[in-house]
Amino acid sequence: MTTATGTTMLGLGAMGRALVAALLKAGHPVTVWNRTPGRAGELIERGAVEAGTVHEAVTAGGPVVVCLYDHASVRQTLTPVADALRGRTVVNLTTTTPGEARELAAWAEERGVAYLDGAIMAIPPMIGAPGAQILYSGDREVFDRYRDLFDLWAASTYDGADAGLASLFDLAILSGMYPLFSGFLQGAAMVRTAGVTAAEFAERAAPFLAAMTGSFAHTAQLVDRGDYSAPVQSLDWTITALETIARAGREQGVAPIPVDMVTALVRQQIDQGHGSEGFDRIIEGMRPA
Amino acid sequence: MTTATGTTMLGLGAMGRALVAALLKAGHPVTVWNRTPGRAGELIERGAVEAGTVHEAVTAGGPVVVCLYDHASVRQTLTPVADALRGRTVVNLTTTTPGEARELAAWAEERGVAYLDGAIMAIPPMIGAPGAQILYSGDREVFDRYRDLFDLWAASTYDGADAGLASLFDLAILSGMYPLFSGFLQGAAMVRTAGVTAAEFAERAAPFLAAMTGSFAHTAQLVDRGDYSAPVQSLDWTITALETIARAGREQGVAPIPVDMVTALVRQQIDQGHGSEGFDRIIEGMRPA
Repeated sequence: MTTATGTTMLGLGAMGRALVAALLKAGHPVTVWNRTPGRAGELIERGAVEAGTVHEAVTAGGPVVVCLYDHASVRQTLTPVADALRGRTVVNLTTTTPGEARELAAWAEERGVAYLDGAIMAIPPMIGAPGAQILYSGDREVFDRYRDLFDLWAASTYDGADAGLASLFDLAILSGMYPLFSGFLQGAAMVRTAGVTAAEFAERAAPFLAAMTGSFAHTAQLVDRGDYSAPVQSLDWTITALETIARAGREQGVAPIPVDMVTALVRQQIDQGHGSEGFDRIIEGMRPA
Repeated sequence: MTTATGTTMLGLGAMGRALVAALLKAGHPVTVWNRTPGRAGELIERGAVEAGTVHEAVTAGGPVVVCLYDHASVRQTLTPVADALRGRTVVNLTTTTPGEARELAAWAEERGVAYLDGAIMAIPPMIGAPGAQILYSGDREVFDRYRDLFDLWAASTYDGADAGLASLFDLAILSGMYPLFSGFLQGAAMVRTAGVTAAEFAERAAPFLAAMTGSFAHTAQLVDRGDYSAPVQSLDWTITALETIARAGREQGVAPIPVDMVTALVRQQIDQGHGSEGFDRIIEGMRPA
């Protein structure tokens, strides 16, 4: 049972606090540590134990869950206590790149530390509530051993032994999310010029854009085949549509920055002679300059 | 009954042909015209009548539905037959800006032509199938009179007397769609560097991003209030997340163009001193330079 020795949490930002709160709510003992002291107050009232040093925290027993600011802060925090970590388990939920996760996994392996990487697909208020997901990759045994604990936070999936995979999936999906919200906000900026509230616009846009994700499977087929030659609507057609959106934005006093980004990707493909092919071909333009 | 005199369709691109096909399928007589002849073949076999001239087409009786390349082609096509259009009805489904739709509505009013503007939220294969939507604005009487006809194409909504509204809603929603697909494709580009297919990625990304549209209502509240001061995650936090995505992309040999666009919008707000405020504040940066 994981509850026998409790869990250690390094990092008490908004996300770290939400993770600890979910464990305490389930009656699970937690030792907490934060670089800047004084953030544990409410959690201590609810039963958390605050460790005075990182060393004290990581030797409290149970898995060491890390939720710090970034990869550099994880390295800075764990390096001085590497010896104390030997034979223990680190579950790193800090947002890192896949390469950084792989580097930490290699670092841990060299030091005899079991390492599982996790990527949280939720904002702090979603932790412990339906809809939150956490992806894991790395040491499968760690995932299996603490699965019940992880399920207190979110729906848990195991993505593979490559420690970078959880982060890769997470960041790839977020690569869709941020442009989605930016584009939605461009739309809201456009309609408000006609006195339409963003709330009214959200009601119209949300079901349409949610339904559009149903086309990802078809888009994916074309991308996997690398064949964009028989489009329903060509890039030449698409750029006219995009330019109409941009023109409409400017007419209304809105700088259509999200759509202009798409236009540039489309134009690049047209300039390379692919105007008769389909929109999904823009993926081929996402290569480093 | 609208079926007594049939409908005229100006424009036989992929969308025009799909619209005509849906009417013919319902047994509705259609007169067609296209600037470049020879595109009506299959439709004539199915019962459409091809007009030799625009004048012949617009005087065939019934509403004149226009689905041409762009606003300029609508003006070029209708101007010479303005006299023949007097007392008739034009339903313009060509993609235009709200300003262009308003201009056409004014042009039509001066000439005694009833004008309804429409914006098609579908690709041609969706016409006549579930999921397609067409938004209308302008002359309410025209909408009510031909509603049954319109419903053969798609779910029909009337958005208001301002002829620009249908187009405004359409283009605003598409402002979300194109960045969504671009971001999805960036994600697909990232995961394929680890041997993950776009199909597998689509299965993971689609439900998450569809669920995210559920947050539009909350985003909209903040935008309508113009108050971004109490965020769950600040712009300072968000830029770290965005930079991690971009770094992960570059690590994998992917140019994270969609996410870089979002980063620029976020950085602009931070540079203006709003780092502690929320992400949705980027809407305030979408003003013309």
